[in-house]
Amino acid sequence: MALYVQKYGGTSVGSLERIDSVVKRIDRCLASGHHVIVVVSAMAGETDRLIDLGLALGAQGGEREMDMLMSTGEQVSIALLALALKAHGHASRSYLGSQVAIRTDDAHTRARIIDMDTKRLSADLDDGVVPVIAGFQGVGPDGEITTLGRGGSDTTAVAVAYALSADECQIFTDVDGVYTADPRIVPNARRLDAITIEEMQELSSLGSKVLAVRSVEFANKHRVPLRVLSSFVEDDNQNTGTLITHEETVMEQPLVSGVTYSKDEAKITFVGVSDEPGVASDILGPVGDAGIEVDMIVQNTALDGRTDFTFTVRRGDFAQAMQLVREVRDQVGGREVVGDDGIVKLSVVGVGMRSHAGVATTMFKALAQEGINIQMVSTSEIKISVVIAERYLELGLRCVHSAFGLDT
Amino acid sequence: MALYVQKYGGTSVGSLERIDSVVKRIDRCLASGHHVIVVVSAMAGETDRLIDLGLALGAQGGEREMDMLMSTGEQVSIALLALALKAHGHASRSYLGSQVAIRTDDAHTRARIIDMDTKRLSADLDDGVVPVIAGFQGVGPDGEITTLGRGGSDTTAVAVAYALSADECQIFTDVDGVYTADPRIVPNARRLDAITIEEMQELSSLGSKVLAVRSVEFANKHRVPLRVLSSFVEDDNQNTGTLITHEETVMEQPLVSGVTYSKDEAKITFVGVSDEPGVASDILGPVGDAGIEVDMIVQNTALDGRTDFTFTVRRGDFAQAMQLVREVRDQVGGREVVGDDGIVKLSVVGVGMRSHAGVATTMFKALAQEGINIQMVSTSEIKISVVIAERYLELGLRCVHSAFGLDT
Repeated sequence: MALYVQKYGGTSVGSLERIDSVVKRIDRCLASGHHVIVVVSAMAGETDRLIDLGLALGAQGGEREMDMLMSTGEQVSIALLALALKAHGHASRSYLGSQVAIRTDDAHTRARIIDMDTKRLSADLDDGVVPVIAGFQGVGPDGEITTLGRGGSDTTAVAVAYALSADECQIFTDVDGVYTADPRIVPNARRLDAITIEEMQELSSLGSKVLAVRSVEFANKHRVPLRVLSSFVEDDNQNTGTLITHEETVMEQPLVSGVTYSKDEAKITFVGVSDEPGVASDILGPVGDAGIEVDMIVQNTALDGRTDFTFTVRRGDFAQAMQLVREVRDQVGGREVVGDDGIVKLSVVGVGMRSHAGVATTMFKALAQEGINIQMVSTSEIKISVVIAERYLELGLRCVHSAFGLDT
Repeated sequence: MALYVQKYGGTSVGSLERIDSVVKRIDRCLASGHHVIVVVSAMAGETDRLIDLGLALGAQGGEREMDMLMSTGEQVSIALLALALKAHGHASRSYLGSQVAIRTDDAHTRARIIDMDTKRLSADLDDGVVPVIAGFQGVGPDGEITTLGRGGSDTTAVAVAYALSADECQIFTDVDGVYTADPRIVPNARRLDAITIEEMQELSSLGSKVLAVRSVEFANKHRVPLRVLSSFVEDDNQNTGTLITHEETVMEQPLVSGVTYSKDEAKITFVGVSDEPGVASDILGPVGDAGIEVDMIVQNTALDGRTDFTFTVRRGDFAQAMQLVREVRDQVGGREVVGDDGIVKLSVVGVGMRSHAGVATTMFKALAQEGINIQMVSTSEIKISVVIAERYLELGLRCVHSAFGLDT
């Protein structure tokens, strides 16, 4: 008899029919003698609809009100799912973030979870009640409704699984697991039966949308057992998904577990800046002060006391970052500022590359054979990322996927 | 400098344009140096949409979950209105029922307000912040979300006005006041500048939909100054609405202040029951036990130890009440049970009739002249109600309205 926390995303509760399918899945799990706690997102499209309403009225400075508004999406879902469970003969109770005291800081629209109470949930499990918890939301220091940012429901699920020492946190979504690459672009991508949490964390932060990166960080930190499964596959035996393991040594660990990409990239190059201490911070200081996140940073060895300095930002921040950088051009003695938002970041991830040389070589060779120019490179212990022109995204993904023997 | 509690109903916040119009109205009120606290309903149609979703999933026994579900409607409205007020340069903050501690009993879907906190609201008023409170909802003894039943937002507004000793509770709606009769049926009905709270209470409980009857009862009990106004008339000088007064003696008090009706009526007659003690309770006991509300009850003087016993219920309860009554027929020795759900109740209301005889005569004569048969009569100190066939509703309303000199 195990305790599962099951999280269902927006498409999984997107209609009354989908909700019915969720009920049947929970039903089967309970019939096998297990306990279930459910975490749900807003019905697909609902959060966007609410945000649009708020933006239409002018949401500037109204983060508290936006949280009040957006959090209704999950509230509707929990009530509907609890009603549906009751109609199928299961005792069930829905809970807002505040009602199970998912306490957060006061950073509205991007709050972080501090802790939570387990009293009501434990009592429910003892009484055979299925608790249904609203994802994405918590309660701030003054009793205000907070939300956790996009993908926050995954984080809620992991936090609940941790707090109640669940046997597994199951993330039900519209794909049936984690793939070696996005199957929409790489048709012969394979589903992974298992992946290490470290790899999953890199994949999520490098653009894979299967799991929200914060939820993976949380699961990693607290060693929460995590599994990604499909909410569309009805046969549970066919739906084992991908287990995210906390053991480093998976048998026959491949060199590379997956290839991923991010399109939300733009780069800014500062040509011919003085090669002096303090220049990098002069350039990036104002960008950071404006709350713009900088991802990759590359600076070449200087020639004749001059160097080129390049960094990447999200596309939505591109125009503002260009403006800020132009303002400090005279100060740092740069010749020119060049920007490009027609780029993508392509990354290979694998704990196997730690002990193997030559991963970079394999990747660069594969891209070169297709005539794809590498504009920037960034590496960490278990990943290599390259920036290439956006038009090469699909070609690049497929040739790298193939080069590492990931094709089915 | 006055404090107004302004309540806006579903059509008043039914679209972004309507919300904008509400903001402008509040703006004018603040510009005149007044304080405003706002109470809002769900956007028009939203509560029905949510109820339909819940019913589709099987809401039986799920009152707690239905409250969780329905209360999101008002939550969306308060967030949107607070955002709109902020966008127009006003400090504003939205509040759930729980956040201003509108404490209720635990009767989900029909909870009653026990008390509320005024601390946050008073602090907001001191700080120049416009509080926007979700109507219709409160918080139960265990921190659960409760709702107050249909028309609950009116009750919220009156309760807030009472708790903060507001100078006036203004109910903004889609009509511009209280009329001597429903203008859709009686074209020459007149808007009343003032009406006594006692009359308003009778009108509301007899079918007038301008104000929810519980809000009027609350206002009467606590002497809350109440006014009904239009949210569609832009010129405030043209929008004085109807003041609901707590003084009995309005100058030149007319005999009758208004004529109203209810279509939600059905009658059940028990023919030839024994004229013995206990028969009435034998008949009505099972009906009451089933939670069916009985309105009018008429029993004629017995002839030959037999009498007819008639009562009215809501149309939605008609079939069940008929069934229950048939089951006790043998027990009470009735000859026959006859039902009719093609009836309406037509009522005249006026504190003036207290001191004047002949009101009933005027009413009955007017109906007789049009050949309308009176099936049942019920009177109280300030109202007379008759039951007539539904097809005579419009004709009956107009002739009675005219007979009491209410026509313009």
